[in-house]
Amino acid sequence: MSERLEADYIIETAIDPRQAAEIMAGEQSSGTFVAVPGETEELKARSAAQVEAVEIYDTVTAPSLPGAATGERYARARVTLSWPLGNMGVSLPNAMTTVSGNLYELKPFSGLRLVDVRFPDAYAEAYPGPRFGVDGTRRLTGVTKGPVIGTIIKPSVGFSLTQTAERVTELIDGGVDFIKDDELQADGPHCPFDARVEAVMRAINDHADRTGKKVMVAFNLTGEVDEMRARHDLVLRHGGTCVMASVNSVGLGGLLALGRHTQLPIHAHRNGWGYLSRHPMLGWSFPAWAKFWRLAGADHLHVNGLQNKFCEGDDSVIAAAQSLLTPMFADKPCITMPVFSSGQSAVQAAETYRRMQTTDLIYAAGGGLVGHPDGIAAGVASLRQAWEAAEAGIPAETYARDHPALARALEAYA
Amino acid sequence: MSERLEADYIIETAIDPRQAAEIMAGEQSSGTFVAVPGETEELKARSAAQVEAVEIYDTVTAPSLPGAATGERYARARVTLSWPLGNMGVSLPNAMTTVSGNLYELKPFSGLRLVDVRFPDAYAEAYPGPRFGVDGTRRLTGVTKGPVIGTIIKPSVGFSLTQTAERVTELIDGGVDFIKDDELQADGPHCPFDARVEAVMRAINDHADRTGKKVMVAFNLTGEVDEMRARHDLVLRHGGTCVMASVNSVGLGGLLALGRHTQLPIHAHRNGWGYLSRHPMLGWSFPAWAKFWRLAGADHLHVNGLQNKFCEGDDSVIAAAQSLLTPMFADKPCITMPVFSSGQSAVQAAETYRRMQTTDLIYAAGGGLVGHPDGIAAGVASLRQAWEAAEAGIPAETYARDHPALARALEAYA
Repeated sequence: MSERLEADYIIETAIDPRQAAEIMAGEQSSGTFVAVPGETEELKARSAAQVEAVEIYDTVTAPSLPGAATGERYARARVTLSWPLGNMGVSLPNAMTTVSGNLYELKPFSGLRLVDVRFPDAYAEAYPGPRFGVDGTRRLTGVTKGPVIGTIIKPSVGFSLTQTAERVTELIDGGVDFIKDDELQADGPHCPFDARVEAVMRAINDHADRTGKKVMVAFNLTGEVDEMRARHDLVLRHGGTCVMASVNSVGLGGLLALGRHTQLPIHAHRNGWGYLSRHPMLGWSFPAWAKFWRLAGADHLHVNGLQNKFCEGDDSVIAAAQSLLTPMFADKPCITMPVFSSGQSAVQAAETYRRMQTTDLIYAAGGGLVGHPDGIAAGVASLRQAWEAAEAGIPAETYARDHPALARALEAYA
Repeated sequence: MSERLEADYIIETAIDPRQAAEIMAGEQSSGTFVAVPGETEELKARSAAQVEAVEIYDTVTAPSLPGAATGERYARARVTLSWPLGNMGVSLPNAMTTVSGNLYELKPFSGLRLVDVRFPDAYAEAYPGPRFGVDGTRRLTGVTKGPVIGTIIKPSVGFSLTQTAERVTELIDGGVDFIKDDELQADGPHCPFDARVEAVMRAINDHADRTGKKVMVAFNLTGEVDEMRARHDLVLRHGGTCVMASVNSVGLGGLLALGRHTQLPIHAHRNGWGYLSRHPMLGWSFPAWAKFWRLAGADHLHVNGLQNKFCEGDDSVIAAAQSLLTPMFADKPCITMPVFSSGQSAVQAAETYRRMQTTDLIYAAGGGLVGHPDGIAAGVASLRQAWEAAEAGIPAETYARDHPALARALEAYA
């Protein structure tokens, strides 16, 4: 596959899934609901989407989604479609319209979910991809082994500038590698972006001058395109090493503009992901969705965490994280660093390592770090100890015997 | 309401809906999953989201979505939350994160859908809104009464430049007011954007010179921000009167950049809408979602059509269209012209008028116009006749007796 755009779906339909797949291909290329003049054989040969595969894997008796054509039973199938590059050209936004578009609304489908997408090689050349990824993030944070231990400024929103800078000072004194703004804190009047960068970077730079360790701060610059570019430049001028954007709020247009402009890692926040994914027979699976943001330049991307405070199961979290570490193209892997976050503490480190078999990730804890009963430094220590134990293959409870920060965390967050 | 951002949801939960609403408010403002230092009473007073209303309207015995905390029964409730403007400031992307964000993933919810949103007055001042809307579109098309009769270039994709220009010539000779690119046709190599604009505008301008009627063409400029700005300028230079963007593919960042730049009406295409809305207890309702694009500058927005080829029911289509014609602010109504499209023909005109009681809309037919058995001119005539009959309160079948184009359409598309 190098010249065609391909996408995999799971579908649920009361009609023959092969026929359903042909309807998908027609809707998303040269067909409409009646035959029209101009849809010649020559045009179809040039532009029609092709059904590459249809594999029925289940049959159910009730439809997953309302509104579809009904039947006695509904087949579930995995479908692969492909399109010639000539239809959408080399354009991420138009590729998105091509592989998703109106498909989710078509009458024969009581379920339709996009599970993967493969881009033609021309996309690898045309798009920036992550400029930093795992290696760049390790270089900028100085974390050569183990996960990058991160935290979120909490409360999410409401701090003044002074309070924010004070909290950041506490966090860096506590030994974190990485700090992010909450997605709810961008440029509100209590804590405006530009002044926050100045105040926070003063603390970060002072600490770096004293210790040689520059903590990475993901400043949430979510906003309009020109704002984001200007904010990026401000962070860069102050010696900052990361910017953050809520990708569903800025959209592909926003992230592409930032991705082409950036000289810093982009920390991509997926808030809103639930509305795209929460129903298992609707919307997007993470690996497909993430590839758009990876090509657009996301260096870090949130994947939730094990035993999280949300509805997502652990298997889905691991599949998402692994997908980010799987190359997209032979010559341009577009590796994006997974960010484990949401209800994380020392408790989940062992299982996360057991399943990921790598520490090429950001492990971010908010309450699970600053809420440690012995304070922030103990919170950070508990996370590092938990990961040391995991990498060494030592049960956390065993390692905790002579690592009191870990012991207290296991107790507090059990 | 002028200083707070408000949002209405329908939720489904096994816990007390009042408690569930407090969890929503906490997650989307100053709370996290454990108490953290810094979340003082003063901070909460400044920044906590408030639960404004909780109204239980139903109880069900099975959860709508998997993954949630379970119970014996699940209450459905309508919830209103509000946030101080100080949290997110005047920023559409950050308002989107605030009202949607992580809410859809929270454990206590087996259903959560955003049904409406009300912006503080400061948003009316800060954002462009539709620059043309209904009045501007009527002025530019010269359609002073009745709906703007539109069509889509079909086949959707695959035509060469010459074929596209020939088809446009046929459509304008047939008498249409409005033509749009299909959302699948943007800048593919068979029909690149810039050359298409030149070729199509030559036909449009020739016809305007001869007849005084300039047909509006919505050129699909979907792409990256700088591309879209440049393409807009090209359309303007060639005397074009409309541009089109797929809003879910360019995102708010994309549409805001275009909305601030544009000197032409923006035809906003909602493809992808199904993944945001198809499950009735998940995602977005149209009125809430549309307000973001209206503020960002959408002059036209697709609302599907009655008896469409998709899964959406007629009530939902009408509610969507009516929402666009309902003012957002007293001093800045942000009226966006609804575009009825998808399987439309003369057949649905009467019912559309009966329910809308206005002709301030674009009525777009693809196959239902060019597929008319007597050709394009008859297709256009059949639509105009169907709307004349509807406005005059004459049954279409009666009016068809001495209007053969309508008669043939009612027969062909029954």
